[in-house]
Amino acid sequence: AVGLIMGSDSDWPTMRAAAAALDEFGVSYEVQVISAHRTPVKMIEYGRAAAGRGLKVIIAGAGGAAALPGMVASVTPLPVIGVPVPLKHLDGMDSLLSIVQMPAGVPVATVSIGNARNAGLLAVRMLGVADPELLDRMAAYQADLEELVAEKDAALRASLT
Amino acid sequence: AVGLIMGSDSDWPTMRAAAAALDEFGVSYEVQVISAHRTPVKMIEYGRAAAGRGLKVIIAGAGGAAALPGMVASVTPLPVIGVPVPLKHLDGMDSLLSIVQMPAGVPVATVSIGNARNAGLLAVRMLGVADPELLDRMAAYQADLEELVAEKDAALRASLT
Amino acid sequence: AVGLIMGSDSDWPTMRAAAAALDEFGVSYEVQVISAHRTPVKMIEYGRAAAGRGLKVIIAGAGGAAALPGMVASVTPLPVIGVPVPLKHLDGMDSLLSIVQMPAGVPVATVSIGNARNAGLLAVRMLGVADPELLDRMAAYQADLEELVAEKDAALRASLT
Amino acid sequence: AVGLIMGSDSDWPTMRAAAAALDEFGVSYEVQVISAHRTPVKMIEYGRAAAGRGLKVIIAGAGGAAALPGMVASVTPLPVIGVPVPLKHLDGMDSLLSIVQMPAGVPVATVSIGNARNAGLLAVRMLGVADPELLDRMAAYQADLEELVAEKDAALRASLT
Amino acid sequence: AVGLIMGSDSDWPTMRAAAAALDEFGVSYEVQVISAHRTPVKMIEYGRAAAGRGLKVIIAGAGGAAALPGMVASVTPLPVIGVPVPLKHLDGMDSLLSIVQMPAGVPVATVSIGNARNAGLLAVRMLGVADPELLDRMAAYQADLEELVAEKDAALRASLT
Amino acid sequence: AVGLIMGSDSDWPTMRAAAAALDEFGVSYEVQVISAHRTPVKMIEYGRAAAGRGLKVIIAGAGGAAALPGMVASVTPLPVIGVPVPLKHLDGMDSLLSIVQMPAGVPVATVSIGNARNAGLLAVRMLGVADPELLDRMAAYQADLEELVAEKDAALRASLT
Amino acid sequence: AVGLIMGSDSDWPTMRAAAAALDEFGVSYEVQVISAHRTPVKMIEYGRAAAGRGLKVIIAGAGGAAALPGMVASVTPLPVIGVPVPLKHLDGMDSLLSIVQMPAGVPVATVSIGNARNAGLLAVRMLGVADPELLDRMAAYQADLEELVAEKDAALRASLT
Amino acid sequence: AVGLIMGSDSDWPTMRAAAAALDEFGVSYEVQVISAHRTPVKMIEYGRAAAGRGLKVIIAGAGGAAALPGMVASVTPLPVIGVPVPLKHLDGMDSLLSIVQMPAGVPVATVSIGNARNAGLLAVRMLGVADPELLDRMAAYQADLEELVAEKDAALRASLT
Repeated sequence: AVGLIMGSDSDWPTMRAAAAALDEFGVSYEVQVISAHRTPVKMIEYGRAAAGRGLKVIIAGAGGAAALPGMVASVTPLPVIGVPVPLKHLDGMDSLLSIVQMPAGVPVATVSIGNARNAGLLAVRMLGVADPELLDRMAAYQADLEELVAEKDAALRASLT
Repeated sequence: AVGLIMGSDSDWPTMRAAAAALDEFGVSYEVQVISAHRTPVKMIEYGRAAAGRGLKVIIAGAGGAAALPGMVASVTPLPVIGVPVPLKHLDGMDSLLSIVQMPAGVPVATVSIGNARNAGLLAVRMLGVADPELLDRMAAYQADLEELVAEKDAALRASLT
Repeated sequence: AVGLIMGSDSDWPTMRAAAAALDEFGVSYEVQVISAHRTPVKMIEYGRAAAGRGLKVIIAGAGGAAALPGMVASVTPLPVIGVPVPLKHLDGMDSLLSIVQMPAGVPVATVSIGNARNAGLLAVRMLGVADPELLDRMAAYQADLEELVAEKDAALRASLT
Repeated sequence: AVGLIMGSDSDWPTMRAAAAALDEFGVSYEVQVISAHRTPVKMIEYGRAAAGRGLKVIIAGAGGAAALPGMVASVTPLPVIGVPVPLKHLDGMDSLLSIVQMPAGVPVATVSIGNARNAGLLAVRMLGVADPELLDRMAAYQADLEELVAEKDAALRASLT
Repeated sequence: AVGLIMGSDSDWPTMRAAAAALDEFGVSYEVQVISAHRTPVKMIEYGRAAAGRGLKVIIAGAGGAAALPGMVASVTPLPVIGVPVPLKHLDGMDSLLSIVQMPAGVPVATVSIGNARNAGLLAVRMLGVADPELLDRMAAYQADLEELVAEKDAALRASLT
Repeated sequence: AVGLIMGSDSDWPTMRAAAAALDEFGVSYEVQVISAHRTPVKMIEYGRAAAGRGLKVIIAGAGGAAALPGMVASVTPLPVIGVPVPLKHLDGMDSLLSIVQMPAGVPVATVSIGNARNAGLLAVRMLGVADPELLDRMAAYQADLEELVAEKDAALRASLT
Repeated sequence: AVGLIMGSDSDWPTMRAAAAALDEFGVSYEVQVISAHRTPVKMIEYGRAAAGRGLKVIIAGAGGAAALPGMVASVTPLPVIGVPVPLKHLDGMDSLLSIVQMPAGVPVATVSIGNARNAGLLAVRMLGVADPELLDRMAAYQADLEELVAEKDAALRASLT
Repeated sequence: AVGLIMGSDSDWPTMRAAAAALDEFGVSYEVQVISAHRTPVKMIEYGRAAAGRGLKVIIAGAGGAAALPGMVASVTPLPVIGVPVPLKHLDGMDSLLSIVQMPAGVPVATVSIGNARNAGLLAVRMLGVADPELLDRMAAYQADLEELVAEKDAALRASLT
């Protein structure tokens, strides 16, 4: 299962897209609001227990001085995916740098600003390391994307003539 | 095994740290110079064949308009880790944005600018999804980091008295 | 003819200004939705076939980690014009850097953020290399711009008195 | 006393200026290397014990995805001063944003990039809240600065004639 | 008491959050509009008199070329907290750099862009240096934050099932 | 022929790579130092006469408030390629924005910061619009790039075993 | 008199504040739409004739690759004030850098983004070099600003009690 | 005469180019080290006395949170020219924004980063408002620049044949 955490419930409108992606691939997950700066001890406990509880991947979304993904990564050997949530100012640039610029030793797998869907898809790819069938479905999803673009292309071209 | 690719052999001084990390964990890997913009067809072929050849994770380093990680991710269902290699100008900011800002559908797991060691460690964590023993060794490595900091702390404090 | 491609049909509201400019100069073009990250193989095929099909210039618009213009440029000897499409965050700065910061060997002729009209006009100038009459019309268009500014100047000044 | 912590012993060449400032004002302090990402549990313990051990102010220096100042601030009611340590890339901009952009509820008193001296001086000002004599000495220090500028002004002007 | 000043009355919608935080902790304060660039002499007088009038901490909010926090800090030995107020352009980045990048000798305790609440909370922490009871209440407030996150977590999770 | 101009002779170490690329393709060119801000009238005359003198493409390099490419483009119907020359500060970001952010009506084909080689190669592609043989040689050059990468790949791999 | 020019009539809503400031000080001015990139020759003529026609100061507003202020400054010995007009993207940062980063030899007196009022006030200060009475009125205006802040301060404080 | 001030004697290597430019035009000036943050009262006195002492223009250089130019402008009706001095980090971007982004009411005539020569030349242009002969010499200087570029052009071209 995937652990899906975020610093505030106000991040949910952004983060739900990760849940939706996991749903599409039939991957189970659990959702939790955990804040690096407001519930630091709970965050440490969460991270330390994650692998033992059977989680395989953690997705963490946070904004501004976004410490959550990196801090959780520091107390678990699991791969942690960071989603830079854009706040009111700076368009997510502070969130991105706070998440991606981790020091040597503790990586966070960072995706694009506000792009929780990609965090879900990346979790699926990671789970695919142990599950060839999941990889096949990811390949099928990618073929569907291709199909979808072809349809949109056809529709746009039809509209132009 | 891990596929370790880079856009130019001039990226090797940066990327070798990924190889070193994989060596430390006894993870096998293969190295290849593949350029999105100079060997596009070979890149597509590489990506398409990767899963079939038994690769589990791909690490891709590139700089500037760094298309390699995202393009490879578009033709494989494997998780792809992107390393933004800093070039002569802009301090890696162009490399970072070109790699991390992927559209919905195709994620790249981006690490910090020039931090190939973290790419190697992230690959190990991903492989740990299928290999609990590897996770244990990552946890041990993290305990070692803790120890190392304690030693440096002691040394610094000793030097101050 | 000019090939006018874009990563998503959602880029069309931006990219149609390129088509409009080509229309004004009577230059024929074809429109296609092709995504570097969702239809990579089709993109390669498109680029490789472009010159043989009689295209003379390619205009490619994309946003975020905008790989399309550079990737197409890597598989065609034709001049490729890149339009940085601004997305929801970062105001097009990621799109601009992803398109313009190409490595030595493969240039993309980049225009201003969101300015597809200029991509169309640049294509006309390029076609003028082989068509003196087109250059004359570009010169006439520039004279018209001058005239237009003079009219706006007169109108503004009239409104102030 | 002041707690002076930093994420790595490589931060010491930057952070020693804070110690020097405290020395100048006769303020006692203790130095420790504590890393948010390498010794997370020790960091939490340090922060939680700080007030009880008699510390009055904490100065924390860190670079890149600099979580240390904010994380310590989250587990202590003491004022925490953050020093953005510039790393090899981005000139400290990532460090600055990671430290200053804290969410509502947990402030970090951030000083300029690499300016640990100001962190020391700010700690002195904070301690002055409980120690009028320290405030007087800060006022005297500021008068000295004024004097120093006057001397440099005289020297520069003398050199020009 | 805390001195709460701002460059313009248009900063009040931002700065009132500092007043609200001080109210919550029962800390007295006085509010004043003082502009570095429009009332420079009054600003100097305000700063010079502040300590003598019994102020313990000054909170100063300003935007753009935001000189107020640093200038006040230059004429008082009290700790000065700077709030970067975002203006119409640049999202507060100019305000942040103008406030935080102070030269060695005169620190400003800078908080996040537009985050006056944190300025109020930081003032409370500073006053806690002389008032253990206030520190206890800050610790209680932090525990409340933790509680609040737990409630939001429960609510979000309930809404998902 | 190609007109190769630059704002200062100090730009030549950057711009000579454009000349070298043109030499490789046997394209004739002429070199001139013309400054938008120091020789404005000469610049206007140069641009107005360019097409009549038989120039087909203009390459213009400039740094800082880099007006040269855009100004020349405003007085010629020829395609103008802009090279952002990085100066002592800002790493070429000012040069890039000053060149690429042209208003609707007057495009500049901008290449990457300091990358005059790509300006030369882009000029060759543009000339290829009228010269199929030149396009063939560009395609051959691209094949050579591919070959070169293969050799570097082989060399790197050999060095690793 | 002051020459007030702008690249497009769409800049007038920004630039009218310069005119209003000049009106307040009874300084005469003339308004003209002149575009560096659309009416380059007219721009050169305007600049060259300016001093001879009795203009004393020129205010030039432009956005994006904003060449107008610098180009006019290159053909007149008069002081030229540049107003960076913010366009749809980048919040005026491109306009600012294109105007302020002039090469040695040709200065532009740049004011804040979108702040045409300050351009008007700066022109008044410049004219004061030859007109002590104007300087006196500027001093009086500054005293009025001081008064205005005092009133706003009183109003805000009244509203809080 | 021109007042030439700077925040620190370490700014002199940058600022001396302003003095050199004034020397070239035979404009008298006086040099002074005055710091906004270290000698605030002296700065206010300097600004308030400037016009009365016969100064006509003030040039002020400062770096980082560069308050000097704006603060002096707030206490004098004279035109103030600001030179953003680049410090160790951020390449002068903080200096530029702190100087140029002044609020409505108090302008600073900002020149390019580190470009004190242009500050000197701008002062000459401003003095030209009252001194037609000085304007003539500025025009002559500009003609000389033109000549100089022609010579460099000839030299470069000679070296290429």
